[in-house]
Amino acid sequence: MMARLTAFLVASLATIAAAMAQPADPLPSWDDGATKSAITDFVARVTRDGGPDFVRPAERIAVFDNDGTLWCEQPVYFQAAFGLDQVKALAPQHPEWKQKQPFKGFLANDKPALAAQGEKGLLTLLSVAHSGMTTDAYAKSVGDWLAQAKHPRFNRPYNELVYQPMIELLAYLRANGFKTFIVSGGGVEFMRVWAEKAYGIPPEQVVGSSGVTRFEIGADGKPVLMKLPKVEFIDDGPGKPSGINRFIGRRPILAFGNSDGDHQMLQWTAAGPGARFLGIVHHTDAVRKYAYDRQSKIGKLDKAWDEAVQRGWTVVDMAKDWKTVFAFERSSTGASQ
Amino acid sequence: MMARLTAFLVASLATIAAAMAQPADPLPSWDDGATKSAITDFVARVTRDGGPDFVRPAERIAVFDNDGTLWCEQPVYFQAAFGLDQVKALAPQHPEWKQKQPFKGFLANDKPALAAQGEKGLLTLLSVAHSGMTTDAYAKSVGDWLAQAKHPRFNRPYNELVYQPMIELLAYLRANGFKTFIVSGGGVEFMRVWAEKAYGIPPEQVVGSSGVTRFEIGADGKPVLMKLPKVEFIDDGPGKPSGINRFIGRRPILAFGNSDGDHQMLQWTAAGPGARFLGIVHHTDAVRKYAYDRQSKIGKLDKAWDEAVQRGWTVVDMAKDWKTVFAFERSSTGASQ
Repeated sequence: MMARLTAFLVASLATIAAAMAQPADPLPSWDDGATKSAITDFVARVTRDGGPDFVRPAERIAVFDNDGTLWCEQPVYFQAAFGLDQVKALAPQHPEWKQKQPFKGFLANDKPALAAQGEKGLLTLLSVAHSGMTTDAYAKSVGDWLAQAKHPRFNRPYNELVYQPMIELLAYLRANGFKTFIVSGGGVEFMRVWAEKAYGIPPEQVVGSSGVTRFEIGADGKPVLMKLPKVEFIDDGPGKPSGINRFIGRRPILAFGNSDGDHQMLQWTAAGPGARFLGIVHHTDAVRKYAYDRQSKIGKLDKAWDEAVQRGWTVVDMAKDWKTVFAFERSSTGASQ
Repeated sequence: MMARLTAFLVASLATIAAAMAQPADPLPSWDDGATKSAITDFVARVTRDGGPDFVRPAERIAVFDNDGTLWCEQPVYFQAAFGLDQVKALAPQHPEWKQKQPFKGFLANDKPALAAQGEKGLLTLLSVAHSGMTTDAYAKSVGDWLAQAKHPRFNRPYNELVYQPMIELLAYLRANGFKTFIVSGGGVEFMRVWAEKAYGIPPEQVVGSSGVTRFEIGADGKPVLMKLPKVEFIDDGPGKPSGINRFIGRRPILAFGNSDGDHQMLQWTAAGPGARFLGIVHHTDAVRKYAYDRQSKIGKLDKAWDEAVQRGWTVVDMAKDWKTVFAFERSSTGASQ
């Protein structure tokens, strides 16, 4: 009993200290303008118990696209960079790839051909390239790649190219009772390897595209899941509401994307009853990052932008609204190029 | 500040009260024998910080089959009972069903034909019957059905036929930092309507079979998800490890099933490193429920049982290990018939 009372008194002091401390700004990398206010106002409304817009915690579902929304997607989707390296590494075992598209383009490091693949072509290619691997071996190959590969412009591991303001936003939402999910066109097994460390989002809250797997008992009597050369589900564009329905089973109250691939996810989220927050990251910052929208092959933002303007969704102007893009900018060894 | 201090003092009194109370038995419906000890010993081992079998909370994934493990599955899967009622209700719009199997069997209330369908046949049939409905309309039809349909033997709403010992086990695991999931051959959209209330398991922790849905903008300009007549994924047998991989992305440390449809899920869970708990509910209780195993068309338990005996998995003898099966047994208006 004494030990419990002591623990209780220690906890009490911590509580008093927390109550007396002024809360620090939870979004320090965001400029103190209208965009930041739109976010904090929304969170205040849905968390005010007894208020007209209150949403119980179980229903506070927030969904985020990944490529271009939570991390960089230029000059090619990072999963494409991984795929390129993988196809090169596996090519000696597949001489037929040299003559056959899309492998031929990958092996020739043909960037326009790569970019033209889009997520679907990329996933089809990768599902073929990785067929015959177990899910465990695949996860290891992603981890090994991240440990040594570097982004061509920033010369950093790819998983450091996550957007600091979005990391803060995810943590801020979770501190306010939200459950944060990734809903991405990227491969679910690719993202899960690093998403928990990068974003604080556990594997079971990552929704993405997937390939078919088959349960087998291996030669050693141990069960394995083998990756088959077949795409199972493309979680992009109109597939995103289907993915949300299948994996989450509740309509989100907050959605954040950056491209037309997120348009239907934003529409689906917007159409629910009660308070909603719809956000779009607009890539306006050519100096610190890349600037692109309507004409881009990767992360094209066109129709979703038009609807955002029409309906008053929140469009984040990266150059203006984000004080910091990447955490490493704060150190002296910022972006090199 | 005063309001905060008042709230703090109230919280403090609640903490003191909680600390002084002796913890009640978290599994009162379980007999105090070896089965219950196997469960509580496992939980004690994996939650003992610093112990050799400690598992951090994020990795405490527990998966449960639904039909026959968390609720009754006799005389037919409850989703089949729902399907039968739905097909009957929709039949006037489909005169062709009278001549066509499997609809013909459903409409004739042909129980052997129904039982012979299995989960796959049932899901195929239901995906056809429900095609052209929106996901919202479908969820409403499940809720409406549960509100009026009664089990033929117990004369109770189907969602009252949940196993009280398993409800206690789910709550006990969650109180010990586990995240509880359903991994069922049943339709994911069917289960999510009632699983949160019945089991405390939120929609995003329900893994199941699913049909294809298509995003459409309705005539009123509102987006909907339409159910298509196509099965997308069968989360049964060897599909269960694939479903776990796709939806959860971590290997469970505890799995509970009752039939050969859970065999691969148990094998997959057992094959991970560290402490594991594998449980099988054996339907031995003909008096309070139904007794069946190797010869049953529904919930056949044969190969998984053999492996359980061979490997020392925990086989729950319902007649002996469960003091109560259904919560309503405790009231005076228990099972009729």
